[in-house]
Amino acid sequence: MSRWQKFTVKVGELATGHELTLPVFRFEGRDPAAPSVYIQANVHGAEVQGNAVIFQLMKRLEQLDLLGRITLVPLANPLGINQKSGEFTLGRFDPITGVNWNREYQDLTPELPQWFDAHRHLEPAAMLQAYRQHLLAQCERQLASPWGVTTGRRLALSLQAMAHRADIVLDLHTGPKSCKHLYCPGYAKDAARLFAIPCVLLMPNEFGGAMDEAAFYPWWQLAQYASNQGMDMPPAVEAFTLELGSQERIDLQDAQQDCDGILAYLTSRCVVNGSMAAKTMTRYACELRDYRKYHSPVGGLVEYLATPGHPLPAGEPLARILRPDRFGHQDEQRLLCLDEDVIPVLHFASASVYQGTELYKVMTRVTQLT
Amino acid sequence: MSRWQKFTVKVGELATGHELTLPVFRFEGRDPAAPSVYIQANVHGAEVQGNAVIFQLMKRLEQLDLLGRITLVPLANPLGINQKSGEFTLGRFDPITGVNWNREYQDLTPELPQWFDAHRHLEPAAMLQAYRQHLLAQCERQLASPWGVTTGRRLALSLQAMAHRADIVLDLHTGPKSCKHLYCPGYAKDAARLFAIPCVLLMPNEFGGAMDEAAFYPWWQLAQYASNQGMDMPPAVEAFTLELGSQERIDLQDAQQDCDGILAYLTSRCVVNGSMAAKTMTRYACELRDYRKYHSPVGGLVEYLATPGHPLPAGEPLARILRPDRFGHQDEQRLLCLDEDVIPVLHFASASVYQGTELYKVMTRVTQLT
Amino acid sequence: MSRWQKFTVKVGELATGHELTLPVFRFEGRDPAAPSVYIQANVHGAEVQGNAVIFQLMKRLEQLDLLGRITLVPLANPLGINQKSGEFTLGRFDPITGVNWNREYQDLTPELPQWFDAHRHLEPAAMLQAYRQHLLAQCERQLASPWGVTTGRRLALSLQAMAHRADIVLDLHTGPKSCKHLYCPGYAKDAARLFAIPCVLLMPNEFGGAMDEAAFYPWWQLAQYASNQGMDMPPAVEAFTLELGSQERIDLQDAQQDCDGILAYLTSRCVVNGSMAAKTMTRYACELRDYRKYHSPVGGLVEYLATPGHPLPAGEPLARILRPDRFGHQDEQRLLCLDEDVIPVLHFASASVYQGTELYKVMTRVTQLT
Amino acid sequence: MSRWQKFTVKVGELATGHELTLPVFRFEGRDPAAPSVYIQANVHGAEVQGNAVIFQLMKRLEQLDLLGRITLVPLANPLGINQKSGEFTLGRFDPITGVNWNREYQDLTPELPQWFDAHRHLEPAAMLQAYRQHLLAQCERQLASPWGVTTGRRLALSLQAMAHRADIVLDLHTGPKSCKHLYCPGYAKDAARLFAIPCVLLMPNEFGGAMDEAAFYPWWQLAQYASNQGMDMPPAVEAFTLELGSQERIDLQDAQQDCDGILAYLTSRCVVNGSMAAKTMTRYACELRDYRKYHSPVGGLVEYLATPGHPLPAGEPLARILRPDRFGHQDEQRLLCLDEDVIPVLHFASASVYQGTELYKVMTRVTQLT
Repeated sequence: MSRWQKFTVKVGELATGHELTLPVFRFEGRDPAAPSVYIQANVHGAEVQGNAVIFQLMKRLEQLDLLGRITLVPLANPLGINQKSGEFTLGRFDPITGVNWNREYQDLTPELPQWFDAHRHLEPAAMLQAYRQHLLAQCERQLASPWGVTTGRRLALSLQAMAHRADIVLDLHTGPKSCKHLYCPGYAKDAARLFAIPCVLLMPNEFGGAMDEAAFYPWWQLAQYASNQGMDMPPAVEAFTLELGSQERIDLQDAQQDCDGILAYLTSRCVVNGSMAAKTMTRYACELRDYRKYHSPVGGLVEYLATPGHPLPAGEPLARILRPDRFGHQDEQRLLCLDEDVIPVLHFASASVYQGTELYKVMTRVTQLT
Repeated sequence: MSRWQKFTVKVGELATGHELTLPVFRFEGRDPAAPSVYIQANVHGAEVQGNAVIFQLMKRLEQLDLLGRITLVPLANPLGINQKSGEFTLGRFDPITGVNWNREYQDLTPELPQWFDAHRHLEPAAMLQAYRQHLLAQCERQLASPWGVTTGRRLALSLQAMAHRADIVLDLHTGPKSCKHLYCPGYAKDAARLFAIPCVLLMPNEFGGAMDEAAFYPWWQLAQYASNQGMDMPPAVEAFTLELGSQERIDLQDAQQDCDGILAYLTSRCVVNGSMAAKTMTRYACELRDYRKYHSPVGGLVEYLATPGHPLPAGEPLARILRPDRFGHQDEQRLLCLDEDVIPVLHFASASVYQGTELYKVMTRVTQLT
Repeated sequence: MSRWQKFTVKVGELATGHELTLPVFRFEGRDPAAPSVYIQANVHGAEVQGNAVIFQLMKRLEQLDLLGRITLVPLANPLGINQKSGEFTLGRFDPITGVNWNREYQDLTPELPQWFDAHRHLEPAAMLQAYRQHLLAQCERQLASPWGVTTGRRLALSLQAMAHRADIVLDLHTGPKSCKHLYCPGYAKDAARLFAIPCVLLMPNEFGGAMDEAAFYPWWQLAQYASNQGMDMPPAVEAFTLELGSQERIDLQDAQQDCDGILAYLTSRCVVNGSMAAKTMTRYACELRDYRKYHSPVGGLVEYLATPGHPLPAGEPLARILRPDRFGHQDEQRLLCLDEDVIPVLHFASASVYQGTELYKVMTRVTQLT
Repeated sequence: MSRWQKFTVKVGELATGHELTLPVFRFEGRDPAAPSVYIQANVHGAEVQGNAVIFQLMKRLEQLDLLGRITLVPLANPLGINQKSGEFTLGRFDPITGVNWNREYQDLTPELPQWFDAHRHLEPAAMLQAYRQHLLAQCERQLASPWGVTTGRRLALSLQAMAHRADIVLDLHTGPKSCKHLYCPGYAKDAARLFAIPCVLLMPNEFGGAMDEAAFYPWWQLAQYASNQGMDMPPAVEAFTLELGSQERIDLQDAQQDCDGILAYLTSRCVVNGSMAAKTMTRYACELRDYRKYHSPVGGLVEYLATPGHPLPAGEPLARILRPDRFGHQDEQRLLCLDEDVIPVLHFASASVYQGTELYKVMTRVTQLT
């Protein structure tokens, strides 16, 4: 039976002087050599289900034999979570700057030729340790800038500093109206068979500002550089974004499923002692560049017809656009179709759209993951 | 087979000079003595399903024998409908003033003692006609104020001017996450058996700023005053708010159900020739004062447990509040119950709440409508 | 030299579980019989200057001989103050419900005939004490409702509970773009000559949901009822709203002026020992019903021409509306005038307006206060 | 005397079906060889003063001898301009996606080695013409994507398509609370002496998504590539962003100043016949990388002390942070200083800030422009 400790981490201050703080829960494993894990949830304010998964996971971890250290941060963006707009949570972007909270993370990869030259004399383990220290030092340096950092950058760097201490990083999100899907770096494709998640997006060795990328990209860059130098050094860190269904939803029973999937993965990585079978399910994958956005060709009211997670053959309708201002004309309603087979993964949360609103995101060129 | 005409009504101007306009569709009936009808939808921006009902209704009306004039206004609040905030529609209140769009209507009831004295010599029909003229003249007078009227008031008065021309007024709304329910003035209780709506709130002879009240209240006041004067004159106008399920949803098939219910009512009122049976269903009713709001006693994440429309016995849980900041303490989760039997009608749209957020609205002291 | 104590009062909880708290500063006077004072600031989130005035006032009070107790609450609405929307503070209304934070206070006046009958045997002082207890008990009762109270109501009742303990209540606000002005109950007109504020709105014996009304109205009602019963009992409480210029502005030097005005008033009321002269200035007054809103007759861009606080003769332009969509037409620009003499008190904060936007608030039928 | 024509360009559709349209005004010059000009204003919703400048400019142009074609687009972002949030205009970013409206433009530069090889046989004028055709064709291609484009991208590409037809592009913006400043590509530094603008930011040959960059970057890239190929071909297009003071302000008299500056520039470029002297004023310049953001180190209320446009020596206070929650402690107020000489150019629009809010933008390493 494992116990945990709770910390409170300050990540900002509001105009009234109230502190923005995070609750941080930590289980210490019994094997210092085992991989350590960092799990956070709810960086986008409306995407609350990850907190329920952390809740179920903590209940289970208390009963298990833990080898590696596990750090869990629910409610990881207090400003975003508490940002209401009408009956919804306007927690996708900073209300002042408009910047997506999950695009504030930093690529802290050093200039690799110089860095590698300076550290190539080290043993692999020491080299990795030095690399990690570099990442952590960069976080500290940026946070300490005399010109300050933005509110969102401070939060991101504070989270990133915790993540860079871990070997495994899980960032728990949800889509708007969505089936479960996983962002998985290409090199960790085998992990995608362990989570209880049917749709998998395989990410390239690129950086776009998200937590998972911030966590894996410097290591993948290092691995690739080392490989170019004739040294075999697979990425030392794995990082994933788990999209746990739809936003604005807490479902403790469903959280149990995702908890099981995460445990299947963690046991496979020897963080938790024992073995847990992955859930048997059909899993689909595509490359990230084949995960495409379909924007509404017109403004209007939307009846969403395609169900997220269900394959949709070419020519079958995604959605119907109703145009009450055009009743009596041919375009009073219009079916929207794609001319290739896709798997719709998520759709917009509202039933009315402007021309150009991102209506659906769909997987194309899908393969089954076996 | 009936045909309609389309008009465009201007209800405001934006900062860029673009006009705010409404599409207005009108079917002329063949019997000038038959009651006339006014139906509007989507005054709250996220409550779009009424447009789908108007769509289905127009398709049906084109096939039917119409006696009375029917005016239909979908998209009745262009400013509210187009007001996006993140992925949702912030269309419940004026973004500048915060005033609920459905509390901007005016009570245009005259000073009844004076008015009645001045018109008591008239035949009943002429008296009603004069009363209606008073209401319409008041709309015009307010719209023409040299000090101007607010954006929301202008919209409301423009809609009200159309509504006051009708004998029957239907305002199509939805709840946030909601079962179907009907706001019905107490004197028109029999109509509640005709709509395809299971939950009925019986309204008193009071005014609170909503369209239905603006439409029926002056007539109910007149009826009551006349009755006190020994004259029997039932309210000449019926007005209802139909809450057609949840917001941010278009469902054409479900719209068919509500279309049938509206037609059952309209045939019973001889607006449409023929007879259509009301849908058989269990209908529950309570007085408006017994329709109560339950506010969250704490802040936290919410798992909504009680299903709108399903009776909930005393002591059964409405919702669970999860508190990730309190994991490991007794209040990490908490079930919320009421100590009386209720029917939950709607709940909040978001899964995270402040202390005091209106979590559920429930009917209490419920009776079956037979 | 007087010292103060600081308390922290909880007024709510956010979705993350963070507490909404107020800082409360209290000076104890040396004379228990002297009037006690309650001062709050920043209930509307963008109206920050009252905090600067409280700051200056505390510095001065520390040097003065205090007779009555003075309680000061800056930052009185943490949710509103921290609610950013773009580069501004969306702190005028509850982001979820749209309700103006300064319309959430409650009229807790008892049914006067019954209450008066039950207490008429008491000495005047005891009667006033009982009345105050009634108001405080009502606050407690409402806060303890098993159905909960809304977030905004909880804040309002928490503030009101502090205000009802005092004999003098000052609520520090600002306008959008505004000259200084004072909301003053008609019976306390003489006080209006003491504050450093040029424009005075004289309020009637009515209740509309604002703090000042919540504080004075029950006492004015009691006074009037007693008077009708032949008992002379002037209102025992004075309450004012001070509008300290424009929002989104901190100016410590200007705060000194308002601090002086408040001290002139407090010494006149024997809360502070000594005498301080009121500032000599031309003061204008009108009845609240003559304080009128002018709404833009069209949408467009606004050049505000009339300066708040400066008398504007009939026919002189308030504002110019520019219409870039109409360049080349007669209505490319338009001057807006009123046909009576007014004093503009405030104008809208933005330079673009919809048709109907409240452009200016002006005093009409103005008299000089002498 | 020159006359213009007006066009209306559709750039989108709202949920209600209403069209988003732009008013476009065009003066045809009498010399087809003269440079053509594109001027737009108000892409950020609150930044309205550019419309007033266009108004004054049109009045002047009607009186002048025009050689080149001039296209003027006021109100260039109807969705942003009409997006109110409380009393302000939330027009800096797309309300749905959070993307800054001025970061939606596209870099349409072709792959230069291939493009240059394919066109190097052309005469310079023909080559430039082909290059322009490439840019325009790319706009069309992107707008016609079968997957659609976002609302903001559609607007940007529609504007960009007009801009790419011109040789001179002026994008009229404002800061929040700001002195006038100019974004000027390094190669066009001499133009900076012509506008009536004291502060100049010299931009490098980089692309960040803004209109000015979208307009000049492909041409600067081409010029540089040609130069590397031994061909001297200065950038054929000049593009500037003019920041005309503070947002939410219309001032027709001040607009006259900027109109004069623009005319001084346009006559120097032979778009307008004649010569107009530039205003004599001290002009400061720095490289864009030396234009720095200072973020508030704490949350609190802000008294802005440094005036935009006035040099501030090292150690002099930028701002004071007031912390009412800390009254009585050392940090109840705090002065914020920089340890180098700067010229503050703009500050945040609100007087309350979170930790990390961008408080000031300042020029460092400033030189006088002579």
